[in-house]
Amino acid sequence: MLPTTSSLQIGELAAGQALTLPIYHFKPSDDKATGPKVYIQANVHGAEVQGNAVIYQLMKQLELCDIRGEITLVPLANPLGINQKSGEFTLGRFDPITGANWNREYLNHAIDLPTWYSEHAKLSDNELIQAYRSTLVEACQQKLRHEWGITTGHRLAVNLQIMAHGADIVLDLHTGPKSCKHLYCPEYDLAAAQFLLIPYTLVIPNTFGGAMDEAAFCPWWQLSDFAKAQGRDLAVAVSALTLELASQERVCLEDALVDAQGILAYLSHRGVIAETVDPAKMQRFGCYLKDYKKYHAPSSGLVEYLAPVGEPLAAGQPLVNLLRMDLYGTADELKTVSLPQDCVPILHFASASVHQGTELYKVMTHVFELPTT
Amino acid sequence: MLPTTSSLQIGELAAGQALTLPIYHFKPSDDKATGPKVYIQANVHGAEVQGNAVIYQLMKQLELCDIRGEITLVPLANPLGINQKSGEFTLGRFDPITGANWNREYLNHAIDLPTWYSEHAKLSDNELIQAYRSTLVEACQQKLRHEWGITTGHRLAVNLQIMAHGADIVLDLHTGPKSCKHLYCPEYDLAAAQFLLIPYTLVIPNTFGGAMDEAAFCPWWQLSDFAKAQGRDLAVAVSALTLELASQERVCLEDALVDAQGILAYLSHRGVIAETVDPAKMQRFGCYLKDYKKYHAPSSGLVEYLAPVGEPLAAGQPLVNLLRMDLYGTADELKTVSLPQDCVPILHFASASVHQGTELYKVMTHVFELPTT
Amino acid sequence: MLPTTSSLQIGELAAGQALTLPIYHFKPSDDKATGPKVYIQANVHGAEVQGNAVIYQLMKQLELCDIRGEITLVPLANPLGINQKSGEFTLGRFDPITGANWNREYLNHAIDLPTWYSEHAKLSDNELIQAYRSTLVEACQQKLRHEWGITTGHRLAVNLQIMAHGADIVLDLHTGPKSCKHLYCPEYDLAAAQFLLIPYTLVIPNTFGGAMDEAAFCPWWQLSDFAKAQGRDLAVAVSALTLELASQERVCLEDALVDAQGILAYLSHRGVIAETVDPAKMQRFGCYLKDYKKYHAPSSGLVEYLAPVGEPLAAGQPLVNLLRMDLYGTADELKTVSLPQDCVPILHFASASVHQGTELYKVMTHVFELPTT
Amino acid sequence: MLPTTSSLQIGELAAGQALTLPIYHFKPSDDKATGPKVYIQANVHGAEVQGNAVIYQLMKQLELCDIRGEITLVPLANPLGINQKSGEFTLGRFDPITGANWNREYLNHAIDLPTWYSEHAKLSDNELIQAYRSTLVEACQQKLRHEWGITTGHRLAVNLQIMAHGADIVLDLHTGPKSCKHLYCPEYDLAAAQFLLIPYTLVIPNTFGGAMDEAAFCPWWQLSDFAKAQGRDLAVAVSALTLELASQERVCLEDALVDAQGILAYLSHRGVIAETVDPAKMQRFGCYLKDYKKYHAPSSGLVEYLAPVGEPLAAGQPLVNLLRMDLYGTADELKTVSLPQDCVPILHFASASVHQGTELYKVMTHVFELPTT
Repeated sequence: MLPTTSSLQIGELAAGQALTLPIYHFKPSDDKATGPKVYIQANVHGAEVQGNAVIYQLMKQLELCDIRGEITLVPLANPLGINQKSGEFTLGRFDPITGANWNREYLNHAIDLPTWYSEHAKLSDNELIQAYRSTLVEACQQKLRHEWGITTGHRLAVNLQIMAHGADIVLDLHTGPKSCKHLYCPEYDLAAAQFLLIPYTLVIPNTFGGAMDEAAFCPWWQLSDFAKAQGRDLAVAVSALTLELASQERVCLEDALVDAQGILAYLSHRGVIAETVDPAKMQRFGCYLKDYKKYHAPSSGLVEYLAPVGEPLAAGQPLVNLLRMDLYGTADELKTVSLPQDCVPILHFASASVHQGTELYKVMTHVFELPTT
Repeated sequence: MLPTTSSLQIGELAAGQALTLPIYHFKPSDDKATGPKVYIQANVHGAEVQGNAVIYQLMKQLELCDIRGEITLVPLANPLGINQKSGEFTLGRFDPITGANWNREYLNHAIDLPTWYSEHAKLSDNELIQAYRSTLVEACQQKLRHEWGITTGHRLAVNLQIMAHGADIVLDLHTGPKSCKHLYCPEYDLAAAQFLLIPYTLVIPNTFGGAMDEAAFCPWWQLSDFAKAQGRDLAVAVSALTLELASQERVCLEDALVDAQGILAYLSHRGVIAETVDPAKMQRFGCYLKDYKKYHAPSSGLVEYLAPVGEPLAAGQPLVNLLRMDLYGTADELKTVSLPQDCVPILHFASASVHQGTELYKVMTHVFELPTT
Repeated sequence: MLPTTSSLQIGELAAGQALTLPIYHFKPSDDKATGPKVYIQANVHGAEVQGNAVIYQLMKQLELCDIRGEITLVPLANPLGINQKSGEFTLGRFDPITGANWNREYLNHAIDLPTWYSEHAKLSDNELIQAYRSTLVEACQQKLRHEWGITTGHRLAVNLQIMAHGADIVLDLHTGPKSCKHLYCPEYDLAAAQFLLIPYTLVIPNTFGGAMDEAAFCPWWQLSDFAKAQGRDLAVAVSALTLELASQERVCLEDALVDAQGILAYLSHRGVIAETVDPAKMQRFGCYLKDYKKYHAPSSGLVEYLAPVGEPLAAGQPLVNLLRMDLYGTADELKTVSLPQDCVPILHFASASVHQGTELYKVMTHVFELPTT
Repeated sequence: MLPTTSSLQIGELAAGQALTLPIYHFKPSDDKATGPKVYIQANVHGAEVQGNAVIYQLMKQLELCDIRGEITLVPLANPLGINQKSGEFTLGRFDPITGANWNREYLNHAIDLPTWYSEHAKLSDNELIQAYRSTLVEACQQKLRHEWGITTGHRLAVNLQIMAHGADIVLDLHTGPKSCKHLYCPEYDLAAAQFLLIPYTLVIPNTFGGAMDEAAFCPWWQLSDFAKAQGRDLAVAVSALTLELASQERVCLEDALVDAQGILAYLSHRGVIAETVDPAKMQRFGCYLKDYKKYHAPSSGLVEYLAPVGEPLAAGQPLVNLLRMDLYGTADELKTVSLPQDCVPILHFASASVHQGTELYKVMTHVFELPTT
């Protein structure tokens, strides 16, 4: 069955055009609505387009499925960022006016949990979750109504956040610059990683840094922790993951089908669809966020990227060549740079020339194998 | 007497060019070195060039003065940002690669004060200050030596910060987009505002947000607070101010002389020069940072800025006209926007067309007159 | 009477949004349609917004007029350029992907005049003009249908050009960077300059450089020349002017009314409206395009613009100060630059810092007074 | 033997830094200087870095060779463009201020050949060539000394052009966006294509479009044509080629060695080095410039590039998929686009999302095999 279609205005451009999001919706019939609600978005960073192809392939599959939980899908989630070109590439990582990263604009909820909890403590778990959800949504709506206005980036992000707060499962589809597939997953939810076709998982703590996944799960993790301190065992109600689906500026429908299949396996496991979709058997690895290292160019130059992403690199092995044609004939004309530690390079910078200090690579260190379910 | 000249490399561009800072230095003869040390920089944001002209005029004056305290001046403090054009304007507010605001990259010191203080408690005030200064500088140097490298912006900022940590008085010269002159001044140091020719002062708290002034005074304020809690009365040793010298993309040598004169009055008061320079008599106003409001465009359009900066604006008075030529013939073709509160507009956006959410104006509310000394 | 409203799609953005133009239309009743047809557009360069305000004020006037000739008005004529920000300013002068100047993308007609004329020589003047107009429009439409496609800029420009080819009077509203009001006017049409409130006129030859005015009049000038060579006296049928309405990034409704009044005087003179609107009495000056000089920065530095635009500047008088803070203490710290020739500075660069070679000023030389009608 | 090193200043940035070129020089001893002079440059477009690596590998080879003709090599030939980042990529195709393509700024010589030739007709061929060379260099130097200054781009280009005019062989090393290797070669010089390891050659006519190769050979071609018309057989004295060495934003030292080897084979053939280096045996194909087609996106969307560059594509075969997630569920959600003509795709756009009208592919049509020597 085709999804229903709607749209949401999340901004307005200087010349008057509305910025709108296309929204697709799969809904179970009322008697079958037994599964959790799902929210999936893609392309919040303008150059990270592959998530749209994954949503495309996923919707083609969902059309054939027996839907048990509501699914909302928002491709092209940042129309301003997607359309912002600078030279041949999409300048879609930050607001071109302010420099604000589009994925750091979500609302950091500041709920006074002691007060809130004491007012709602008598509710059942389900009622408590409902009430909390309403509180989160209301805080977002209040932000949108702020009497001094709200930035372009906040307006976009908080509108997305309201949709996300309506769901039990939130998937934010991104890519790296030149990147292998990897996953940001909160520590409490590590089992989810077993379903996706993503070899590397970053295990992230309960700290709000402004991103969608954190915006979606942090308040629930806090509620769960607070309840625990009050002696009540309340599982974290929301699962929120960021999937990094290889490199930006790339559309591959065949590979999108692979990732759609992984998401489907997870949705199947969670009861969102009635069909059973088995997860792919593969080795999966984890790394704590604190062990995820950025390596910055020690000097400037032209860069030959030597270490392939997604493959272990032993300490001392070549990472990049730095070519300095202004220094030809000196000892510094060509330097091979390596790292002092074993790691798995996950992504590298997109351009082949760098200023000193440019983030050359992000690598996982202290990588461990994730247990298979 | 001419200042001495040196330079400092703070980065390297892709094609190999060194990024260097010109540094000017006025030094008292040893027997006269009775005054505090001063550090003044300008143009950390690339389009904010007027501070250079102020340093120019200030140095012309200082050449004629009897110097009692060392003065270090760094114009053109961000060569990468200054040279980064996009269209006809300077794209100098943030790193074009990462979006990072160049004035939010300073090191946030994380000194374990209880331990540090207990180790140094027996020192005299002067020795304590010396020791603390060394600790701050060493932390910066350690940051620069980080084994995983350091971003382009941090390398620039932390190098500047090391120079600033050597001084007792730190002045960071900025401008707004379209702006009247205003000053960021920490609450403990409000007397300093009496010397500058700047009518509006933002009174800022002891919170680190990444800017140079905060980087320079926050650790000293913290030390002072901690000492107080230990029963020791230690004045905040460092004075750090950000001067916003009207609008960006503007050089005016005559107006620069006015501001140089104000700075000279402050240096005179502090004993940096032997000469007496009286401050200008003028009304000066203050506003707490919490009352400094950003107003965001409620809808998009072409903007006629109606409220002049630096002049009180009563609630309900016209702030801007928003012209919407796509809506000609409707009620929304031209909207006059006003604010619900009395204020003084301090600065407004530089462009005459805005997306919804663009920061249109920053205004001071609850403005009060500063006492004259 | 309100204009009628329509819109035209002239492109499509990456995320799927249509780029559309708002089009306003004043039409005489059939029995009164005695006047020429008019086409007016504004804001083809994204930062040059004042023309929209002029169209606003002009339409407010036209609503009260007795219309005798069809008038088509297209404000916001380049939605892609208007919405393209880079930092706080509009990057609207060229396509951010290709660098192509938006006002150099019009179709250069390559009509084989000997053949065309021999086929149409027997027509009356009116019929000839009709036939030629159709030929021009058809050539544009063919360009739009090109089997290998057409660039983003050409699609926009040629769509505008089709509308312009429908008119007898074409006004393209621009601004300079920091500029006084000036006019581009073809030599044969110099009388038109007498009606506008614009002190300086550039007299331009019959050479196609890609701009709208040239695209609109060049083919007609060529036809007229060719007919003359065949012994037929055919006036150039189309009047096409580019109005430069002071500076970019500026909206002033009051000043817009002044320029609307000037346009109205010209439309009155040409019989587009029944009302008589007298032109303002003022001195007007001309300069041949070959005498319009660009002065490029002889060295780099911070720029204090000394010569006001629109005021005569004698040879040797100060044009700019170039401040070089990296050279403080040397003879090159501050250089005052002047020109070797008397001139009237018309516009200067928008930013206060320049690389070597940046176009600092455009100045008229050999300025002469235009005769008053 | 190591090359000698020098540098040339070709500009100055706003904050005062000199823009300089590193220049490397191989020189035969005077008694052996029997070969032609060579000029090789790379990286005039900032993102096209691979040519530097080729120069690196070539110089490593030349150090081992018996040099018979002077060789000048200029890597990093556009320091401003190379260092200009916008987001993660290099915005190096055009001047960020003016939009001018850095490779369209060379001087178009306007030599009055009838006069010049009549004044020099009595010279021997060698003397004539010497005199003409001097005339070209002098025209460039005059351009640099222009009393109204010269643009940033012209200053860079004309300085490069002076060096090129000193040589008999000029190689300009570029890359495409996503591209296979191809060569721009003037028709008279097609034999040169036999030596390089480049499968596809564009055969270009004698028309000046602003690029280095044209700037270097057009005046000589014109001289040769003019002499022929006077009954004198004078071969075109200068060989000038543009090598497009695969994709931008890529450094590969191994592949650079391959292309260095091809250049070496050509230099060997021309007697620049004493050693014999045989050209690689491979099929090579040609296409006239008029048959080199640009295909523009017929509508906007996300792009899956299907046709690999460098491989023949039959008419009607899939070129790209255009994915429109805003149109999911309609017939336009996914369109496969093909071309009406057999071709070889040579390069495609770098980004995976396009506005309507973006140049998607450049393809050769009417491809023919080049004869092997």
